[in-house]
Amino acid sequence: MIETAAIISTGTEIVQGLYADTNACHLAGRLNELGLRVAAIIACPDDPAELEAALRHAASRASLVVMTGGLGPTEDDINRDVCASVFRVELRRDERAVELMRGHFRARGLTMRPSNERQALVPRGAIVLQNMRGTAPGFFLPSPAERGAPEDAAPQCALLALPGPPAEMTAMFEESALPLLRARIKGRVFARTRTIHTFGRPESELNDLVREIFTHDPRVTLTILAKSHGVDFLVTARAEETAAADALIARCEAMIVERAGSGCVCGADSETMQSAVARLLIAHRLTVSAAESCTGGLVAKMLTDTPGSSAYLKESYVVYSNEAKMRILGVKAATLESFGAVSEQTVREMAQGLLALSGADYAIAVTGIAGPDGGTPQKPAGLTYLALASPGRTQVLERRFPGDRELNRFHAALTALDMLRKTISGG
Amino acid sequence: MIETAAIISTGTEIVQGLYADTNACHLAGRLNELGLRVAAIIACPDDPAELEAALRHAASRASLVVMTGGLGPTEDDINRDVCASVFRVELRRDERAVELMRGHFRARGLTMRPSNERQALVPRGAIVLQNMRGTAPGFFLPSPAERGAPEDAAPQCALLALPGPPAEMTAMFEESALPLLRARIKGRVFARTRTIHTFGRPESELNDLVREIFTHDPRVTLTILAKSHGVDFLVTARAEETAAADALIARCEAMIVERAGSGCVCGADSETMQSAVARLLIAHRLTVSAAESCTGGLVAKMLTDTPGSSAYLKESYVVYSNEAKMRILGVKAATLESFGAVSEQTVREMAQGLLALSGADYAIAVTGIAGPDGGTPQKPAGLTYLALASPGRTQVLERRFPGDRELNRFHAALTALDMLRKTISGG
Repeated sequence: MIETAAIISTGTEIVQGLYADTNACHLAGRLNELGLRVAAIIACPDDPAELEAALRHAASRASLVVMTGGLGPTEDDINRDVCASVFRVELRRDERAVELMRGHFRARGLTMRPSNERQALVPRGAIVLQNMRGTAPGFFLPSPAERGAPEDAAPQCALLALPGPPAEMTAMFEESALPLLRARIKGRVFARTRTIHTFGRPESELNDLVREIFTHDPRVTLTILAKSHGVDFLVTARAEETAAADALIARCEAMIVERAGSGCVCGADSETMQSAVARLLIAHRLTVSAAESCTGGLVAKMLTDTPGSSAYLKESYVVYSNEAKMRILGVKAATLESFGAVSEQTVREMAQGLLALSGADYAIAVTGIAGPDGGTPQKPAGLTYLALASPGRTQVLERRFPGDRELNRFHAALTALDMLRKTISGG
Repeated sequence: MIETAAIISTGTEIVQGLYADTNACHLAGRLNELGLRVAAIIACPDDPAELEAALRHAASRASLVVMTGGLGPTEDDINRDVCASVFRVELRRDERAVELMRGHFRARGLTMRPSNERQALVPRGAIVLQNMRGTAPGFFLPSPAERGAPEDAAPQCALLALPGPPAEMTAMFEESALPLLRARIKGRVFARTRTIHTFGRPESELNDLVREIFTHDPRVTLTILAKSHGVDFLVTARAEETAAADALIARCEAMIVERAGSGCVCGADSETMQSAVARLLIAHRLTVSAAESCTGGLVAKMLTDTPGSSAYLKESYVVYSNEAKMRILGVKAATLESFGAVSEQTVREMAQGLLALSGADYAIAVTGIAGPDGGTPQKPAGLTYLALASPGRTQVLERRFPGDRELNRFHAALTALDMLRKTISGG
């Protein structure tokens, strides 16, 4: 029976720091949802000695080792051989895998090379997981106890080997590996995690407001993380039924929203600021347009991230130069001269000009100094003005973002969307 | 002397799969640049038994263990105590760290809580790395041999402990840890990696063109990776001087560019498609504007990703509705009726209308079906038309992107930028 898992990602590019290990992150999330505790995630180079050491360490910490990568046809692909050696099993050639590979090459008008046949080698006693999206099959090697293998120096855990390309890995995990794991998971403790997204309040403040809710119930844990899109509350609950875990989470979420304030909670799990704003606009049959200087199109891009955005966005403008601000939006030359392009007065005229031009229900305007250059002591890089105009009302915000160009623009666009979200929802 | 490194990231949120481990990725890159081989990257939960096992495994694989996280003031922050136990050293209170923490709180108008004083505990014999951006100091514990510690069951490696927040971690690594590591790195073999970015050719094709270059010289290795922005060649060279490694890389890069074709190579290392296009526009004193339907502002956003973009982008338009395409750009109603909004004819009129409207040297237009909805058998989701107009010339491309909404939009914007890049550079 399986209670704990360890994940091994093989790939020299990961330990060279060239790419973050997203396969392991995805698998860790899925294994946690199955109620397994993940004891370790290990990345190692395509090197037999390192992989062997990693396998032995992983096997010592967990009853299931999940390994990705290293199943391809090249000399770098050592995982099959190292597994056979560490787990003391022989490799056999799987004829069905060879047939599937041949078909895969034939469908592309190619001939299979002999080197690909190596990919059809799997450990004796393993369940072969055929690869419908690529060439290398994966495999699940049950624990020696389940296989009736002699008790020897081999690790006592089960081993799941998946290919490295993310699309092949996730498909094989979901379609082939999941049922095998579910049948072997001990007990009935399920973990569920819900991520509650906030925007606009600092982490320390939210921590003080919310932390004490979580000191009472050992079934529920809270992690607070400051991310670039805002502060996230991660609530994890463990229970014997998923419904019970979900009920625990719902109770915590209600307490979090009450304490942090509904105005700053902008979504949960896959809901983003973008999708929350889209949902509100569609539900209220409202339209919006944007006039952007420093964000350069990012507000419009984020407004159209969500399918169906043509219902509420008809047109939008990037007005980078002063000349464009005057000609397209009707900002007065005197305003630009007296107060500058980055000013409360200019952003107000931009939003009001856009409201008239576009005929939308809401007009967003953003002007600022994205950085790193262009700042002055009076108007430093990061200084940004945002406006939201609707018939009869114009709100203006000043923000001083402390980040780099990319972050300043992202936070400016999020702030613009948040103004719209709060205004529509009355928050 | 230090030759190999292992990295440990502590944080339950990582093994829960909630966030990818970006600290380890950053550190692995920096350690490789120092010429160290990274043998393993391990993520473990905030759990003493798992951290101890991870430390012992890491110490068995490397002469330097770098650990991030777990130095905060809460009960989750176990790294100090576990290190002391595994490395058989006592903890002492560092008065300078206490003073710095007090100052940190005072500057923010806060009083330091007693729980923060725990953060000033460091192993005896360790060099304290003060934290100028947060509260927790880090430390470097030299190997027992260097410290003159008795030979016992403690690991024989050196240990570097850094705080978890990325800004604190990177600053402490660069400012305090790097000189300590450099003084202890054995030999003079430096590794350098250069990443060459391509766009527009499939991975398998590039692999066949380039792979054989790399079979001759063992000092140089090649990794080919398909990323969302295109296919990257990662060339790593090892030599006794960084200049020699750089020369090896330069020779390989020239061969890659020759074989893959200069048209598809769009940059190296931190140069992106965006910065390459910005560089060309500025160098040739050209201006550009965009009229975007499906990309919804992303082309303009990417054109303004680079500082100084106001030199070449004055204005840009998101024309999502047919009405906006007609009113703003002058697309003919008959064209939209006969051929539809997603057609070669419409994108051509969009680009030509924009060229006249904006007065820019180049006008980009994009129209397509971003998906997931809105497709038909004749015009499936992903179908996109792109145009680049300049006085007297309009190029049009048709693309069928196979991804999700986000990827289709990203690839459409990259393709638009690539048209501009190739046209200006004559590629």
